[in-house]
Amino acid sequence: MTEPINLIGRRGLMLVLSSPSGAGKTSIAHRLLEEDSALEMSVSTTTRKRRPGEVEGKDYQFVDYESFCIMINNREFLEYAKVFGNYYGTPKGAVTKALEAGRDVLFDIDWQGTQQIADSKRDDLVSVFILPPSTRDLELRLSQRAQDSAEVVANRMARASDEISHYREYDYIVVNHVIDIAVASIKAILAAERLKRDRQVGLTDFVKKLRTSQ
Amino acid sequence: MTEPINLIGRRGLMLVLSSPSGAGKTSIAHRLLEEDSALEMSVSTTTRKRRPGEVEGKDYQFVDYESFCIMINNREFLEYAKVFGNYYGTPKGAVTKALEAGRDVLFDIDWQGTQQIADSKRDDLVSVFILPPSTRDLELRLSQRAQDSAEVVANRMARASDEISHYREYDYIVVNHVIDIAVASIKAILAAERLKRDRQVGLTDFVKKLRTSQ
Repeated sequence: MTEPINLIGRRGLMLVLSSPSGAGKTSIAHRLLEEDSALEMSVSTTTRKRRPGEVEGKDYQFVDYESFCIMINNREFLEYAKVFGNYYGTPKGAVTKALEAGRDVLFDIDWQGTQQIADSKRDDLVSVFILPPSTRDLELRLSQRAQDSAEVVANRMARASDEISHYREYDYIVVNHVIDIAVASIKAILAAERLKRDRQVGLTDFVKKLRTSQ
Repeated sequence: MTEPINLIGRRGLMLVLSSPSGAGKTSIAHRLLEEDSALEMSVSTTTRKRRPGEVEGKDYQFVDYESFCIMINNREFLEYAKVFGNYYGTPKGAVTKALEAGRDVLFDIDWQGTQQIADSKRDDLVSVFILPPSTRDLELRLSQRAQDSAEVVANRMARASDEISHYREYDYIVVNHVIDIAVASIKAILAAERLKRDRQVGLTDFVKKLRTSQ
């Protein structure tokens, strides 16, 4: 849709996308970032080693173990987790700055990260859970990834099933049957959430002016 | 946007549009009904005399004073009000039937009607308040309606200001600066609200099937 003219200032929102791996979340996130100029990706901080091709400050903020622990102690993270021996976290600073400027931040995190953010910043959070259209579809995508054994695929399916069990903790459910429709659905969610009364910070002044300038 | 394929059954919602008169609400409602086949208009019951051209059951359900009072006593209305000596009300029956079938119902009512509906059916209610872009714009529309005296226009402006004072009771605020954008905004709100987890009644079964058919 055409962008509404911004007569009323608004606070940004945090759009969380979660899904079992294999449901197409990453492709959807890329499309959203490409097509919506008010949306930016949250850059995580990690203790993981930088891989060839990864750009510092774009893909991740790479720090050492000690720095990460100091940031935890200083409560600098919206959420963090340890995965396969490495720490990953979302630093508060950049997110807060974006929200205050009326920009929206996209998070590609799992249910555990979502819960941590929900605990600290409920009002700004809009959470979307992406589901595959069918088990067969999910299995197909998970096995196409590489030439993996049946056991590896079964393992991934079990993890997907665990992740799916948390769908109840999300505001919106989008089934990724056709990616164009899934992307349009999430764009509609963004458009609607931006129109929520309590997100339009300039509204009181706007209405005051409407009512008194007669 | 393209309609999402309906893999998961959903409960309908009640879309309430309110605004000061002169903000363009009626034109917006017509456009929405034309462009969204899942949306239908709520038909009010009234004790007002039928005017030439009005169709029974389409414009209104015309009843006499006694029948209306019986309906009040039987709690058959979602909301009702007396305006200039005539009763107007929204009968529950047709609305409930539409919602259960997964169809959405549009209400063109003021803040008093909205409050009554909110008291009885909070979960199904999605309320949108439409604001004019400026006082000058509102005044222009209210005075173009007929060749009225300055006093009549001032009177209408005062009533508009009263109605606007209730904007805080609504979920969403849409400024009608350009009608195409206002219509697209409300369509996005509808699309998003239809994707809310707690509105998708078939979701538990859908997820169960996803998780067990491995």
